[in-house]
Amino acid sequence: MSQPIPRDDEPPPAGRAADPAHMRRAVELAARGRGTTSPNPVVGCVVLDASGRVAGEGFHAYAGGPHAEVVALRAAGERARGGTAYVTLEPCDHTGRTGPCSAALLEAGVARVVVAVGDPNPVAAGGAGRLRAHGVVVESGVLTEEAERGNAEWLTSVRLGRPHVTWKYAATLDGRSAAADGTSQWITSPESRADVHRLRAGTDAIIAGVGTVLADDPRLTARPSGEADPGAGRRLLRVIVDSDGRTPVSARVLDGGAPTLVAVAHDASATELEARAKELGRLGAGGAAEVVRLPRREPYGIDLHALLAELHRRQVVGVLLEGGPTLAGSFVREGLVDRVVGYLAPALLGEGAAALGPAGVTTIAGTHRLELEDVTPIGPDLRLTARPVPLKEK
Amino acid sequence: MSQPIPRDDEPPPAGRAADPAHMRRAVELAARGRGTTSPNPVVGCVVLDASGRVAGEGFHAYAGGPHAEVVALRAAGERARGGTAYVTLEPCDHTGRTGPCSAALLEAGVARVVVAVGDPNPVAAGGAGRLRAHGVVVESGVLTEEAERGNAEWLTSVRLGRPHVTWKYAATLDGRSAAADGTSQWITSPESRADVHRLRAGTDAIIAGVGTVLADDPRLTARPSGEADPGAGRRLLRVIVDSDGRTPVSARVLDGGAPTLVAVAHDASATELEARAKELGRLGAGGAAEVVRLPRREPYGIDLHALLAELHRRQVVGVLLEGGPTLAGSFVREGLVDRVVGYLAPALLGEGAAALGPAGVTTIAGTHRLELEDVTPIGPDLRLTARPVPLKEK
Ligand SMILES: NC(=O)c1ccc[n+]([C@@H]2O[C@H](COP(=O)([O-])OP(=O)(O)OC[C@H]3O[C@@H](n4cnc5c(N)ncnc54)[C@H](OP(=O)(O)O)[C@@H]3O)[C@@H](O)[C@H]2O)c1
Ligand SMILES: NC(=O)c1ccc[n+]([C@@H]2O[C@H](COP(=O)([O-])OP(=O)(O)OC[C@H]3O[C@@H](n4cnc5c(N)ncnc54)[C@H](OP(=O)(O)O)[C@@H]3O)[C@@H](O)[C@H]2O)c1
Repeated sequence: MSQPIPRDDEPPPAGRAADPAHMRRAVELAARGRGTTSPNPVVGCVVLDASGRVAGEGFHAYAGGPHAEVVALRAAGERARGGTAYVTLEPCDHTGRTGPCSAALLEAGVARVVVAVGDPNPVAAGGAGRLRAHGVVVESGVLTEEAERGNAEWLTSVRLGRPHVTWKYAATLDGRSAAADGTSQWITSPESRADVHRLRAGTDAIIAGVGTVLADDPRLTARPSGEADPGAGRRLLRVIVDSDGRTPVSARVLDGGAPTLVAVAHDASATELEARAKELGRLGAGGAAEVVRLPRREPYGIDLHALLAELHRRQVVGVLLEGGPTLAGSFVREGLVDRVVGYLAPALLGEGAAALGPAGVTTIAGTHRLELEDVTPIGPDLRLTARPVPLKEK
Repeated sequence: MSQPIPRDDEPPPAGRAADPAHMRRAVELAARGRGTTSPNPVVGCVVLDASGRVAGEGFHAYAGGPHAEVVALRAAGERARGGTAYVTLEPCDHTGRTGPCSAALLEAGVARVVVAVGDPNPVAAGGAGRLRAHGVVVESGVLTEEAERGNAEWLTSVRLGRPHVTWKYAATLDGRSAAADGTSQWITSPESRADVHRLRAGTDAIIAGVGTVLADDPRLTARPSGEADPGAGRRLLRVIVDSDGRTPVSARVLDGGAPTLVAVAHDASATELEARAKELGRLGAGGAAEVVRLPRREPYGIDLHALLAELHRRQVVGVLLEGGPTLAGSFVREGLVDRVVGYLAPALLGEGAAALGPAGVTTIAGTHRLELEDVTPIGPDLRLTARPVPLKEK
């Protein structure tokens, strides 16, 4: 897909053949920003000098911090002149909290810019155009798929106007998340549970249904290193979907350890919850709670499209849906799951709650088809990552 | 675990360092006999000359055919003298359909014999002893685990006095084998279905419950190359577990295309089935049917221990349990599943029959724990192979 560029300043074939390797490095660099750049995308950049040697590297580390291009150009200094920049996302062309990256690349005298993914954000796009207008060779389409995957949350947010949803579940080989008597701790291994905390640390919010809150009273905080202190991890937004405001005021999700949003129906009486939210507000800690009222979607509960729109307004880019089966079934039914991460324990139960509840499928032809993206052993378990088959391929 | 052998005819370290590689080759050779040696084990053999060069290879190809050692020694000829033989299973010491392999090794003048697995069969064992008594260096414990795995069916049969049971299932990521309306074709891909036929081709019998016969009317034959002709594959024994003789006489498993055993309860009235079996017998084809009467195990149905004992008597060494969930649950409950092979389709159903029915587990602590042995992508699907955690490791 790279554009044919019949110019005499075309880089030697050796240079072009190295494009994928340099872009792969840029994608790796970009990934270092996961979990800290939201609501911005993750971006990585590698700058070569005119002779094709790496002169600088950079990535966008946190929202408000310098962009990847600026970091890499700074490292390259004068060596960037006449060189090539590999950027995982089209350089921005607008002045936000930082100046436009297109201007920085021009100023540094870069001769060629290779882009993995075009910027779908109408506010920031146009960087490639400005660069070309100033005689810079711009090529795109190198490692697009890998780079898109690395930015899936942000791209979904910009393209669809709603957060990217990852549904995470843990189950036995026969697809059960709890035994017949309701016990479910621990189906998967300590290694898998640690991995879930890493997954949480890379997201903006965790969603659970009131059923899970009532059954397990989970904390829903990120503790990547396994420490017990709920404040030690990132302060993710905890979101409880609870039509009738049944979340107990004593629930751990209302412990003030992290901010919490309880989504109730527009007509719910949630006086106690609202009082508890006010109380947490007075405490003034980082763990404020809020009750938000949303439309119902009969007969299931809260309208999940409205829920995601609400989260989008709050600049939530990626969410982790952690259950339970009933709520997950609704997300699947509504086509609102963008990625599935399943932790499969090599065990058999034969009875007990299924990992996924009713999802609107009655016959085999209506199955929600996915494609496997990754399979990784995590301790004794297996972690599967899959995503819906794109409509065009169905 | 190899035995210390303080002798001056000890091979040079280079030779011993090469032991695992040669044994791996012997294990590979052994695997070529899978599906055709039953009720014998699969065995592979590599013979080196005195200088450590490969002089001959062999495997046991079919019951009644020459043993692996004999084939390899024949290929090596005079070069075997003073050399080393790698054998996946302890050489036999008795004269069955062929002469004892221990004698053949002695006659060939082999100086050292390396064994992966000792022979648990009291009739055939003793080969190592006879060799040692004649001054041959015998070492064991090289690649034992791999070799045991390759001979799992036969070793289970000899050690436990019952066939080795592989439970095969196909399910979605959420563990369902059928949609809400009962439709189940095709959850997995053509590639997975072809792989199941390869699995069938390596076994002696296929077991299904009457529920599966009534729901799907399957043929239960091995068609590795996908052809429709049921006679083209190996003539596996088809076993239907059917307490009350509800299998319709028109069922495909009674089509005469392969032998069939219908296991009914001792007190069942199965007049029609018995008449159909007689009729098939008169036809005289290879697809005879037989009705066998076995004790009940209330409240589940047929006593599965009695069923496996019956199959053992018929020299069935390995069986493939193909369902359905109810029967599979009973096998798991009774601790009679030695290997699980799951074909997971990257799809979600949310409703429909679970892959595994009640298996006697009520609380999470009672979970049947397995360990993953292999994970292989098969087309778009994933094939998982697992086996019960050995009791000592639990
Ligand atoms: N192994 C795992 O991965 C895992 C993860 C989480 C939970 N679990 C287990 O799952 C069980 C709880 O699951 P659950 O299915 O009962 O509860 P759930 O899915 O957590 O919550 C379901 C509830 O959410 C509310 N809801 C609001 N809007 C909804 C909508 N649009 N669609 C669906 N539900 C909506 C409904 O209650 P209202 O009508 O009152 O709003 C509904 O009953 C527990 O046993 C827990 O241990 C397992
Ligand atoms: N996706 C897959 O991998 C797969 C594979 C096979 C089947 N299936 C599906 O599974 C469904 C049929 O499953 P199913 O569970 O109804 O039937 P099943 O497991 O094939 O058969 C169960 C029946 O076997 C008899 N039985 C005899 N002894 C038993 C014992 N000790 N324990 C348990 N059962 C014993 C019982 O009937 P009696 O009391 O009359 O003897 C019992 O109802 C079909 O929809 C089929 O499509 C799926």
